[in-house]
Amino acid sequence: MQTPTLGQLATDTGAQVVGDPDLAVRGLAPLDQAGPDQLSFLSNPLYLPQALASGAGAVIVSAADLERIRAEGQADGRNWLVARNPYVCFARIAQGFDRRGNTDHRTGIDPRASVAPDAVVPASCFIGPNVVIESGARLGERVRILANGFVGAGARIGDDTLIYANVSIYHQCVVGMRCILHSGVVLGADGFGFAPDIGPAGVEYVKIPQTGRAVLGNDVEVGANTAIDRGAMADTIIEDGCKLDNQVQIAHNVRVGAHTVIAGCAAIAGSTKVGRFCVIGGSANFAGHLNIADRTTVSGGTSITKSISKPGGHFTSVFPVQPHGDWERTAATLRGLSKLRDRVIQLEKRLQGQDAGISIQHTEEKKS
Amino acid sequence: MQTPTLGQLATDTGAQVVGDPDLAVRGLAPLDQAGPDQLSFLSNPLYLPQALASGAGAVIVSAADLERIRAEGQADGRNWLVARNPYVCFARIAQGFDRRGNTDHRTGIDPRASVAPDAVVPASCFIGPNVVIESGARLGERVRILANGFVGAGARIGDDTLIYANVSIYHQCVVGMRCILHSGVVLGADGFGFAPDIGPAGVEYVKIPQTGRAVLGNDVEVGANTAIDRGAMADTIIEDGCKLDNQVQIAHNVRVGAHTVIAGCAAIAGSTKVGRFCVIGGSANFAGHLNIADRTTVSGGTSITKSISKPGGHFTSVFPVQPHGDWERTAATLRGLSKLRDRVIQLEKRLQGQDAGISIQHTEEKKS
Amino acid sequence: MQTPTLGQLATDTGAQVVGDPDLAVRGLAPLDQAGPDQLSFLSNPLYLPQALASGAGAVIVSAADLERIRAEGQADGRNWLVARNPYVCFARIAQGFDRRGNTDHRTGIDPRASVAPDAVVPASCFIGPNVVIESGARLGERVRILANGFVGAGARIGDDTLIYANVSIYHQCVVGMRCILHSGVVLGADGFGFAPDIGPAGVEYVKIPQTGRAVLGNDVEVGANTAIDRGAMADTIIEDGCKLDNQVQIAHNVRVGAHTVIAGCAAIAGSTKVGRFCVIGGSANFAGHLNIADRTTVSGGTSITKSISKPGGHFTSVFPVQPHGDWERTAATLRGLSKLRDRVIQLEKRLQGQDAGISIQHTEEKKS
Repeated sequence: MQTPTLGQLATDTGAQVVGDPDLAVRGLAPLDQAGPDQLSFLSNPLYLPQALASGAGAVIVSAADLERIRAEGQADGRNWLVARNPYVCFARIAQGFDRRGNTDHRTGIDPRASVAPDAVVPASCFIGPNVVIESGARLGERVRILANGFVGAGARIGDDTLIYANVSIYHQCVVGMRCILHSGVVLGADGFGFAPDIGPAGVEYVKIPQTGRAVLGNDVEVGANTAIDRGAMADTIIEDGCKLDNQVQIAHNVRVGAHTVIAGCAAIAGSTKVGRFCVIGGSANFAGHLNIADRTTVSGGTSITKSISKPGGHFTSVFPVQPHGDWERTAATLRGLSKLRDRVIQLEKRLQGQDAGISIQHTEEKKS
Repeated sequence: MQTPTLGQLATDTGAQVVGDPDLAVRGLAPLDQAGPDQLSFLSNPLYLPQALASGAGAVIVSAADLERIRAEGQADGRNWLVARNPYVCFARIAQGFDRRGNTDHRTGIDPRASVAPDAVVPASCFIGPNVVIESGARLGERVRILANGFVGAGARIGDDTLIYANVSIYHQCVVGMRCILHSGVVLGADGFGFAPDIGPAGVEYVKIPQTGRAVLGNDVEVGANTAIDRGAMADTIIEDGCKLDNQVQIAHNVRVGAHTVIAGCAAIAGSTKVGRFCVIGGSANFAGHLNIADRTTVSGGTSITKSISKPGGHFTSVFPVQPHGDWERTAATLRGLSKLRDRVIQLEKRLQGQDAGISIQHTEEKKS
Repeated sequence: MQTPTLGQLATDTGAQVVGDPDLAVRGLAPLDQAGPDQLSFLSNPLYLPQALASGAGAVIVSAADLERIRAEGQADGRNWLVARNPYVCFARIAQGFDRRGNTDHRTGIDPRASVAPDAVVPASCFIGPNVVIESGARLGERVRILANGFVGAGARIGDDTLIYANVSIYHQCVVGMRCILHSGVVLGADGFGFAPDIGPAGVEYVKIPQTGRAVLGNDVEVGANTAIDRGAMADTIIEDGCKLDNQVQIAHNVRVGAHTVIAGCAAIAGSTKVGRFCVIGGSANFAGHLNIADRTTVSGGTSITKSISKPGGHFTSVFPVQPHGDWERTAATLRGLSKLRDRVIQLEKRLQGQDAGISIQHTEEKKS
């Protein structure tokens, strides 16, 4: 692994060096842990004191923050990497270190893998032990599939996609380029589709074959144990640049718009369309057949039960947490909330009546 | 794949042809996409205009809907398949196409599978690469287990069951006939059972061996990454015809009654009994040791904390979603809800007092 | 399997026999099912009548409960095992029967496993078929890894740990001694870390490499399909004695304190620190960057959105379940709750005004 200089990192990321461009940078670290051969970053002005106290060899900053530091007379004699977006600059430099540090340059098909004779697997790919690739599957260049993965018949996987151990990709499904699928991901299992029929004792369910596909765009990351079902007749689609965390559930015929992020354990029911650039909090859940506008933010733990038509909103439906005893009182009152409202209405009527000199009948009061 | 005629499909499903029984049907499609060699269906009278405008070679309809179409003078010159339940008829015909289109007729044990010498695997089964079947396991006829599955010692799997890639079935567990288990399913992991003991600094946990089994009835479908734990001493049981979606969690000693459907990410805690013909929404959760009556409907995202004794009810516990700012106001008020109720009671007392000519003491008001 | 006597079980667990120490005990069973060669237990005085009616050869009881039984003249002529904590005593004896009954004494590396030449795998280990152990991984004594598991480069696993089929352990991660990981567990997948950047149409996300590890202490049990992410720069840590149920989600840089239990489907977002000896209910979810005090109890289905600083509290945030029609009324009123409060304030002002002889303006009322 070759050690880059601060100047090289600046060139790679379009940032500017203030200080010594020949500083050798051996890695990245948080402000409070970085040493003289490490780079750190300041993305929130709140941490300005930590940046000034840091032992880092250099700190990535915004031009505005460097001005503040200069105004305090603390900029000189230190090294800065001035970036439009310090956090993004940090992420890109970290990616570079990750690539340089990655000693896993394996290519080829492990002898314990099972690849169908008519599957397409370029020589630049790495296919790990016990991976099974079925008939007609087609992989792009430099695809890596770690141990015990399954790629069903006719599936397609784009260039440079990385698939960790124990991933299951069903027949005919599609994964774009530069995607990352983490262990335990299931792509393209049957959607939950049944026709209810009256049986001798009650409703029984007749399976509706799920003949659509699950399709991921480019640059999609899918977290551990996330499941994305195939569509019923049409496809389930995750557009370019989406990031899905662990244990997310995407039902059949859902479409998630480009560059939407979905945090862990969120669930989207069948046929719901989520817009582009949305931010979905962890453990949120969506009813089926909804349309969610672009740039919608949904708080963690929120249940979305209706469509959202106006872009850019932020929605929440979380019961406020309380100490259990307080909660018991709140919950007990909440159960009778509509009656409490009726009592307030009664009180308003009575006061209105008093103002108008009308006497309310006792029998009426009793109703409340 | 042989192309069926409309007449053959009618015979197969107990439906009646109105029109040309010799029409060759090459597939199914939605009303707005179907062509002259495709069949579509009308299960909701709301879509009657689409049915009339459809280019489908034939449409599955109910007798009542066909009467409506006839009344509008639009029935003649077209082909109809009249069914008691058009959606179920569609599902059964779609299953037929799915079977005909399925070119995967593999049987036998892949040379990379590991099957214990005393395991029973009929010649009609397909055992995929890297599947491991341990000692004493017994499979029925025509069982298919795709790549990388695991069947523990002494487990039993019924005829015609299909198990997708990367499924784990623990020792002694039982799967019925005609079941479908999707990738990532874990059947029979240990239930979450520990005896709390006082350690030097606080409560520690002593594992209670989980010696029961997980048992699935016939015609059960289990979605991707769903986990069904084995029982502590007795068994965890999923009865015939249940359909479980993805990422469902079934704890030890739960019993789910026949023909109950459970949508994605729902969780049922230990020893809870769910009745027959229930419909459990996605992301719902149940406390342990409850009894839920037959034909109960539970909305998505609902927490069930008490038993439900009366069959056929519908229960909900979802905080209504609001724009975040509105929610903040609601939540703040909600925390003080029991005090608000006390204030309403105070107001009622004061008004009651005014009516009775009694003046309320100032000190009493202050309490609210 | 050798049959122990009641006296031997007493010696093994530090309990005292009252009755026949030579009684042969062939197994454990619930009070209502146990026969004369089986042992049962009474851990809750509520079940005292069942204990008296039980056909068990012996019953584990506390000294206090045995006193109660003696006071009723029912202790004599029967066999008792008197334990400080009968449930813990039962758990330990059950573990003994489980060990004696376990006929799986396999050791060695299955010929279908793939073990890197420089991985350390002691001869006392069992490595099942299709397990893949990558370069530099180090296993302790008597580690068992069942079929199709994956252990990434440089990972470490402590003595006596049991890993069921289809578990994925990423590179560099650490599992302590005597741990149990159930099928489908994913340890050390990338945390959900991205730097938001302004793209041409909206916010896009740049991946931040996740270079920390996921580290489990000793005696940790992890349920089926639970995912524990690796840290961003520092580690994600689960301390000694923690028990995690199925489908739990632990995000990057979380720390869970020793002897905390987390029930199924709970989710803990990034960088949150959960204290020691906590009890987290099923389907609970935590926002990121929180600090949760030791010995905190969180009810099932609860959303924790703020830090908890005082140890030993119990917190809940569950909307109380109602029949759907009642819920609709409650929810409709809840949306307007802050306005309802304003109306109560208006009423209070008006009554206050009346008391003081001030007449409220009509225009003021209209605001409420």
